[in-house]
Order: sequence, then C-alpha cells, then structure tokens
Amino acid sequence: MEQKEYLQIPGPTNVPERILKAMHRPLVNHRGPEFRELLKFCVEHLKQLLCTENELFIFPSSGSGAIESTIVNFFSAGDAIVHCANGVFGERAGTIAKAYGLNPLPISKKWGEAVQPEDLKVILDNDPEGYIKAVYVPHCETSTGIQQPIEALARVHRECKHPSLFIVDAVSSMAMIPLEQDKWGIDVVISGSQKGLMLPPGLSLVSINAKARAQEEKSNLPKWYWNYGAMRKALEEWSLPFTPPTSLIFGLRESLIMLEEEGIENVYARHEKLANLTRSACESMGLELFVKSDDYSRTITSLHLPENIQWPELSEICRKKYHLVLGGGLGQLKGKIFRIGHMGNLDEQDLYSILGRLEAALIDQGYPVKPGTSAASLIQKYD
Amino acid sequence: MEQKEYLQIPGPTNVPERILKAMHRPLVNHRGPEFRELLKFCVEHLKQLLCTENELFIFPSSGSGAIESTIVNFFSAGDAIVHCANGVFGERAGTIAKAYGLNPLPISKKWGEAVQPEDLKVILDNDPEGYIKAVYVPHCETSTGIQQPIEALARVHRECKHPSLFIVDAVSSMAMIPLEQDKWGIDVVISGSQKGLMLPPGLSLVSINAKARAQEEKSNLPKWYWNYGAMRKALEEWSLPFTPPTSLIFGLRESLIMLEEEGIENVYARHEKLANLTRSACESMGLELFVKSDDYSRTITSLHLPENIQWPELSEICRKKYHLVLGGGLGQLKGKIFRIGHMGNLDEQDLYSILGRLEAALIDQGYPVKPGTSAASLIQKYD
Repeated sequence: MEQKEYLQIPGPTNVPERILKAMHRPLVNHRGPEFRELLKFCVEHLKQLLCTENELFIFPSSGSGAIESTIVNFFSAGDAIVHCANGVFGERAGTIAKAYGLNPLPISKKWGEAVQPEDLKVILDNDPEGYIKAVYVPHCETSTGIQQPIEALARVHRECKHPSLFIVDAVSSMAMIPLEQDKWGIDVVISGSQKGLMLPPGLSLVSINAKARAQEEKSNLPKWYWNYGAMRKALEEWSLPFTPPTSLIFGLRESLIMLEEEGIENVYARHEKLANLTRSACESMGLELFVKSDDYSRTITSLHLPENIQWPELSEICRKKYHLVLGGGLGQLKGKIFRIGHMGNLDEQDLYSILGRLEAALIDQGYPVKPGTSAASLIQKYD
Repeated sequence: MEQKEYLQIPGPTNVPERILKAMHRPLVNHRGPEFRELLKFCVEHLKQLLCTENELFIFPSSGSGAIESTIVNFFSAGDAIVHCANGVFGERAGTIAKAYGLNPLPISKKWGEAVQPEDLKVILDNDPEGYIKAVYVPHCETSTGIQQPIEALARVHRECKHPSLFIVDAVSSMAMIPLEQDKWGIDVVISGSQKGLMLPPGLSLVSINAKARAQEEKSNLPKWYWNYGAMRKALEEWSLPFTPPTSLIFGLRESLIMLEEEGIENVYARHEKLANLTRSACESMGLELFVKSDDYSRTITSLHLPENIQWPELSEICRKKYHLVLGGGLGQLKGKIFRIGHMGNLDEQDLYSILGRLEAALIDQGYPVKPGTSAASLIQKYD
C-alpha cells in the first residue's frame, strides 16, 4: 500500500488535498482579468487575516526574501537595528542586515528564552536619540520552539514612543497564533506561504504601515526585485512587477477560503490545543520539554533528546520504519533537541498517530516507556 | 462543458498534466534525503540541458530575480555593462544594473531587430582597456518576437578576447531553442521555470563558469538572498540557503524526464516547426509578420495588428468567445502588435485550434479572410 507520511517538521507543513487540487489546474495570463481578480481577493483576505488596513505586498520568494526586502527598503548602510539573538531565525535578520552594511545590535537571550517586554524597554529607554532604526522579532522562533510575547513587546515599543520600526517575522505564526497588526501597533509583518497558510513554499508577503512607508523615503540601499515602489505601482493594477507564482496564488485563495470556513478564532484555538496536547503527551512519556515557561511555541514542540538516544538514529527510524518526519536541532542545539511541528492542516486525531509513531521509535531505541502512554495522555486530555 | 483554454501568451505556458500530477503530492522535508536526491537529479539534468559542466544555482524567484542575482554577484557600483536595448527584457537588464549603481550601456537597435555579431565586434574592439565588464543578451526577446544569434555573438565575444562576461538571458529559449553553454563559450546562462520547462512560474536558475566565478571575488555590492557563495555552500549538501520551492522542484524533475523522453533535438525541431507553421498560416491570412528577417523567435510569433482592428477588442473576443489568450504589445509596441506564444507542451495539431480561433475572432471583427485559410495553410505544410 501507499504509506501516508507525517511531515511534522517546523514547516513546510502538510498541504491539504483541497489546496493541492486548487493548484492542479491550467495557468492563466498573469496580466489578464482572471488573475487580477484572484490577486485582489488574496491581498484583501490576507489583510483581514493580519487585522490590518495596511499595504500588503506579495513576492515570489522564500520567507527570508521578505526579510531582505524590509532591510533594503527601509534602511541605509550604517543604520542600527535591534534583533533577537535567541535562535537561528532571529539571528538571520542580523545576518542579512550586516550583509547590507547595517549595524545589527543583538538582544542576547539564551536560546530557548523569549525576549521580554522589560528587555526591550531597557534598550529603547537607553536610546533617547533614536539611533536604533528598527526592532526585529520573530513571533515564533522555530529553531528553539519559543514564542515571543508580541502583543506585550509591541505595547512597550508604542509606549516608549521610540521612532524605530517594530518588525515582526510571522513566518511561523501567521494563521496559527493570534496576531493583530493594527490594534497592536506593529509597523511591519513578514510571512510566508508554507506554514499556517498550508501552501508549498515559494511565496512570501510583507504588510507595512504608513510609518514604515515614510521610512522607505530615507533608504538609500540599492534594490530592484524587492523594491516596494515598483510593487506598489504594479499592485495598483493588480499585477506584480515580474511574473507572479500563479499556481501558488490559486492555492492561496483556497487556503484563505478554508481558514474563513473554519473561522480564524477556531484555527487559533486548534493550534493552542495541539500544542498543549503534544506537550502533555510528551511529558507523560518522560520526555523533557526544552521550553518550560509559558513562552512555548503553539506551532512546534521542542524536546531534549533523551539520554543515550542519538538524533541521526531516532530520525532515521522515525522516517524509514514509521513514516514520521521530525525536525532535528539547529545551530548550537544540533544533537541536543528535536522538534515536532504541529502546524496547519492537523487535528487532535492526527496526534494519536504522530505521537504513537514517535513512542514506537523511542521504544525501538531502548527508551523506557510503557507502550500506549502517549495515547493514554491524549485520551485523558480529550474533551 | 468545461472549456479548454489555450494560453498562448509568451509564457507562462500550458503546464502538461504529467507535471501538474508530479506537483500534486505531499511535501517532503527540504533537509531530508529524498529532497537531496531530487535536487541533485534536477541540477545534473539541467546542466545536461544547457550542455555545461558549470555550477548551476536554483532560486525561488521569478526569472528577473536571477538577472538581479548576476548583477549583485559579479559587479560593483560604477562597472559598465553592455545590454540590448531592442525590447522590454533587454532593457530590464539595464534597469536592474542602474538600480545597483552600475553604468549600463545600451546597444541601441530598433525594436524588432536583433543585435548582430558586427554590432558587438565594434563595441568590444573599441574597448581595448576592458572598461566593459559584461555583455547581456536575451536569447529570445519576447516583447518583439526576435531571436538573437547567440552562437555567433558568443563567437565574436570569444574571438575579441575581451575580458567581459558574456551573459545570456535564456528565460524564453531554454529547452526550446538550441543553446550549448560550454561549446559556445557563454559565461553565464539565466533561465526560469515557466517557459520551455513547462512549469508554473516561481523558480529561476543561473549557470556560471569559472571565469564568472573569478569575477565574483571582485564584486562589492551588498547581497544576501542572491549570494552565490551561500548557495554554493548549501548545494554541497544538496540543499538551498533558505526554504526551496519543493513542489516546483518535483514538477521540474518530471519536466526534465519528459524532455529526455522526447529527445532534446526533437523538442528543438518541434519548436522550429511550430514557429514556421504559425508564420506561414498567419501570412496566408494576410497578417503582416513583425519580424521579417531570419531573426524571428522560434518560441513566439509577433504580428502587426491589422488596420481597423484594436487590440483590446481582439483580445477580448479571443478570450471570451474563443478561449484563446494571446499577448498584446508591450512598451512602445502597445496597440501596434500582438503576439502568439508557441512554447512548451504544444504540437502541430494544436495549431489548427489556436489559429482557427484567431481566424474566427478576426472575422468577427470584420477582417477580410476566407474561413479555413489558416487550416488550409497548416494542412499544406504538414509532413
């Protein structure tokens, strides 16, 4: 038989059949009326999803491309930006900034700990001259499995009345964890197609407010592909400055319809529940959570590798024998943790299979757990 | 019934069902063994297609992104590059170069005329100091429907022993028109997914030789997303520096298999025949070819709009009544020409339908042609 494989990495996530079907269709003219309608629908509904009235741009690129777009459109060489340094993706904003001659200032937290409002307050209060031009925060840092308190961080940023832009990388949170751009006062939100939107990778997006737009005027970094000015002009006629990824945009429309059918509040609640069920079941198996505070990600669970279990062997047996693909540790956490993605098109019932497969693989590796433990935990927590 | 629509714009082209099916599948871990095998297969077979032993990079982006990647990796502000100025896409290389502070030097030919070897010889002979750092030529310039004599241009470039890079934009020619990178001595080839490779848009590629690689060392332009150094390092382990467009890469594998099954020489011959049949049939209908010289594109046919026929009306009737989508004129040719794409997954039989629909639409618009003229031309030329 054809084996169903569970792709439980921290994204890309499993693409629902409805979305695959929506992309399985003839292409259309990307300068014709059908595409214009499609793009308009997607941009308007993406804005609703982010709770924003702001401009929203779509790029054919990975999510990292959208991060680069914010660097080259808002800043100039020498500009200081503050970024999180508590994981791979927070550090990436600093790496891109440095590549463009900016001055990245890391907020140095331990990997596995979230940046707190008081951390940000100290930094901004110590910068009365407004030397800092932006604060970059990934909402979920998938390399460690934390979730930063964006609403509270945005509030501090607003209350400090600091002139910098507050920029949120929502690649691993959008359409999974509540995010209200305008109400929370976030200047820029970045995201991608392959996580909460349940699409294949290849499409990124950026939503920018009036303050960010004003900042654009001051940037002198060279740009063409990422140029928001050209994007803005093309979007006036519902087109892109270059050939758009039409198939993904057909998939995006289906994704937005699916999210609206379920109701975004229900989508958020489902992700919260999946995270809590996964954490409880893993603890019941005696696994140690890497993030013990309430700043745990609602989209992935990171776990210490148990003693005497090596990631290459565990990963291989999960994949080959149990058709379960998990994420390993990245950077300084390589060989120390492993990660279970529970993002997108997934429900509580899927967890029996995912955690049952993991449990079986651990038992195969000599890990001491009574068979059925994770299922028992799930059943007891089920309501 | 469900209407079949003929998407005969100059790309994106119709995606064959086999490729749609190959993309209609669960995603895989982009850091796992299955994806590494897939990427390796695609890179190796793409190199065979370009007849090159060079490095080949894949980006999640439109084709224009790959052009930008060559600008930021090979050059520095102030560097002079020569580019074609005989159409929208030739001019785009100049626009991107200018955005990065380069000094773009246009070869000013009339739109509809190809750059000739003697044009290039004069330019290079007049630059004994090697002030010019690169020559950019689109193989097919789809905005006008010409095809530049790349083999002859490359020969001149080689014989002049000029230190500049010879860079070919093969977005609208790869896998449709012969192109032998190494034998012809082309330093850099750029292409995209949505034309000869018959895929949806969203993936671009660049193949660079040792001379180009040496030039990379001299570039001081800022870059991160397009950085070949990071791409090269990631490809050593058959991964990308950011999330790759996995679905498109599954489609790409199927495309490469299909091209090999048909045999690339047969694919080239098919495109040549499609172009010739289309030109003859259009002329038999009394339409005037925009490109009368032998430098006509083998992938699209551009035609003068007949007297008293307006593009918006012709386009609308083709699309709404006959389900045929054609390309209009771009830039200075807007309202003057229209364009028929005959790229990718298309055979001689399809031309009966495409040209029959066009003929019907023209007759509806009062154009004087005897019904059946294009079909008669196709039948007479059929062998």
